[in-house]
Amino acid sequence: MARVSYRELVDTFRGVLVRVGFTLDRADLCARLFADASRDGVPSHGLNRFPRFIDMIHLGVIDVSATPLRVASAGALERWDGRRGPGNLNAHACMDAAIGLSRRHGVGCVALSNTNHWMRGGNYGWQAVDAGVIGICWTNTLANMPPWGASDPRVGNNPLVIAAPRSEGAVVLDMAMSQFSFGALESYRRRNELLPVPGGYDNSGELTRDAAAIEASRRPLPIGFWKGSGLAMMLDIVATVLADGRATHEISRDPLHETDLSQAFIAVNPAALGDGNALAAVDRIVDDLHAMSGAASAPRFPGERTLQTRAKNLTEGIPVDPEIWEAIRRMDRQ
Amino acid sequence: MARVSYRELVDTFRGVLVRVGFTLDRADLCARLFADASRDGVPSHGLNRFPRFIDMIHLGVIDVSATPLRVASAGALERWDGRRGPGNLNAHACMDAAIGLSRRHGVGCVALSNTNHWMRGGNYGWQAVDAGVIGICWTNTLANMPPWGASDPRVGNNPLVIAAPRSEGAVVLDMAMSQFSFGALESYRRRNELLPVPGGYDNSGELTRDAAAIEASRRPLPIGFWKGSGLAMMLDIVATVLADGRATHEISRDPLHETDLSQAFIAVNPAALGDGNALAAVDRIVDDLHAMSGAASAPRFPGERTLQTRAKNLTEGIPVDPEIWEAIRRMDRQ
Repeated sequence: MARVSYRELVDTFRGVLVRVGFTLDRADLCARLFADASRDGVPSHGLNRFPRFIDMIHLGVIDVSATPLRVASAGALERWDGRRGPGNLNAHACMDAAIGLSRRHGVGCVALSNTNHWMRGGNYGWQAVDAGVIGICWTNTLANMPPWGASDPRVGNNPLVIAAPRSEGAVVLDMAMSQFSFGALESYRRRNELLPVPGGYDNSGELTRDAAAIEASRRPLPIGFWKGSGLAMMLDIVATVLADGRATHEISRDPLHETDLSQAFIAVNPAALGDGNALAAVDRIVDDLHAMSGAASAPRFPGERTLQTRAKNLTEGIPVDPEIWEAIRRMDRQ
Repeated sequence: MARVSYRELVDTFRGVLVRVGFTLDRADLCARLFADASRDGVPSHGLNRFPRFIDMIHLGVIDVSATPLRVASAGALERWDGRRGPGNLNAHACMDAAIGLSRRHGVGCVALSNTNHWMRGGNYGWQAVDAGVIGICWTNTLANMPPWGASDPRVGNNPLVIAAPRSEGAVVLDMAMSQFSFGALESYRRRNELLPVPGGYDNSGELTRDAAAIEASRRPLPIGFWKGSGLAMMLDIVATVLADGRATHEISRDPLHETDLSQAFIAVNPAALGDGNALAAVDRIVDDLHAMSGAASAPRFPGERTLQTRAKNLTEGIPVDPEIWEAIRRMDRQ
């Protein structure tokens, strides 16, 4: 695994994005959002995802020049149309709008229709906490998970992000409703490793820890069986209603044409209540977790490793898959 | 299992509540909230929970005369102090406040500190959808679940409720972060049945479907292993920060002294955006789910059985555990 600097990563992404038609400032933000994912240890939605993002631009699925448009507004609630623009730029704009609303109204909720894959959802959680507010956001996806009791993938794994600032860093949960993402299944298969817990069903309908069997059946397991299935449905429902957008079952099942997604972004600003101390509870909860004795391994809070990974990668360089990195560099030179 | 009418249930609860010091109107609402849980098929947080509720009043943990007080406000965000009043009345008042905020601001968020167990969380989801809005609420609890990687119960199973109106009824998710509640574990043990999926660890640290073994170890499984553990932590963090209240680790582990909980109530009013049709998406999603072929059993949406159960119980009477019902009737005559 080679390592490259954050600067080099951003410059290369930006170069490619300008070549495919982005304006310079939009290319810069889009490049940073991709680089941030790799920098924080999520290359599946950073560098490794960049080639498919470019493919979807060439296919006309993602419109590089489309900017999100606010189409309805009622105080602290807004509805935006993503107009099939780049998913990460749309999501960033909507979390920004939600943060702005939370500064004026204490809480802000922005729903977004007709957008594309937001790549790494955690980015928008960090965006909220970097602004000093609590962020909650989620997206629907194409149908990639059978609802509980069925074998046909009819619901999305609909990632949910919840983020809260703390004195040093943040607590950022970024989780899909499937026990493992297809990206994670692929990694286990390539390493020839069994999953640590059952991750789905094989073709005969048995729970299995064999990643390849789950990839073959397309039956990943919802977290908590019926519970994650129900939560995924609710997230789809709320995002779709608020955005007046498309639900999972109305989205193309072809990954290269997964578009017109619906998303929701909520920001809550505890400082608006005038008590500067309320956020201290985050540190108290983290401290209690770390004080646990008798744990097999030290329990961690969501996103705990992110800042260490980020610091290491900024110092030593960000790990890149050499083949993918070379392919992207070639795009930048063509 | 005997059956009694909704009216009789409410009258009896109300009678007992007035005897322990409730004013008549507060007794009436509190009685209805308990009866609604049994009516909708959740007796564990209806009739069956009523005796412990009365015990906690006698112990001085629940203050029957305390009303929740708004202590801070910023536009669409409010913070209320529950002052150890009855948990279901406090929760009902705060969801009501959130609904009111959502009518004025599109979205409303109310956080509540120093409250008691809200009993059946789904009630506040139904309260939101009965008002035509989307409701999202959650509570922390005493520590009753080990975080992922540990064996000591240090996080709560922190139930989460998400509810959306549909043309006929609603979709209402009401789920704790443990795979099974302790109430469910008890039911399986009494019926001498294995759990349908692993529900926790036995005392030797092995995953098990034996409910009694999990009751003995006090190690119920978070949904999705590390994922439900992380989500439970986040729900605790956000409710505690917004309420400026107590976190799970600061709450007594004695069930009879489980008090000073923190909760969050969010209401979103899609009608504020002027599009009366957005809620039609809920019916589209439900219809798609029901149209699924090849399912082992028909997939259901969250809360799908509630309205059937409610209708049946209103017609045939609400099932009651005869012993518990007699004990409560005796309280009403004493």
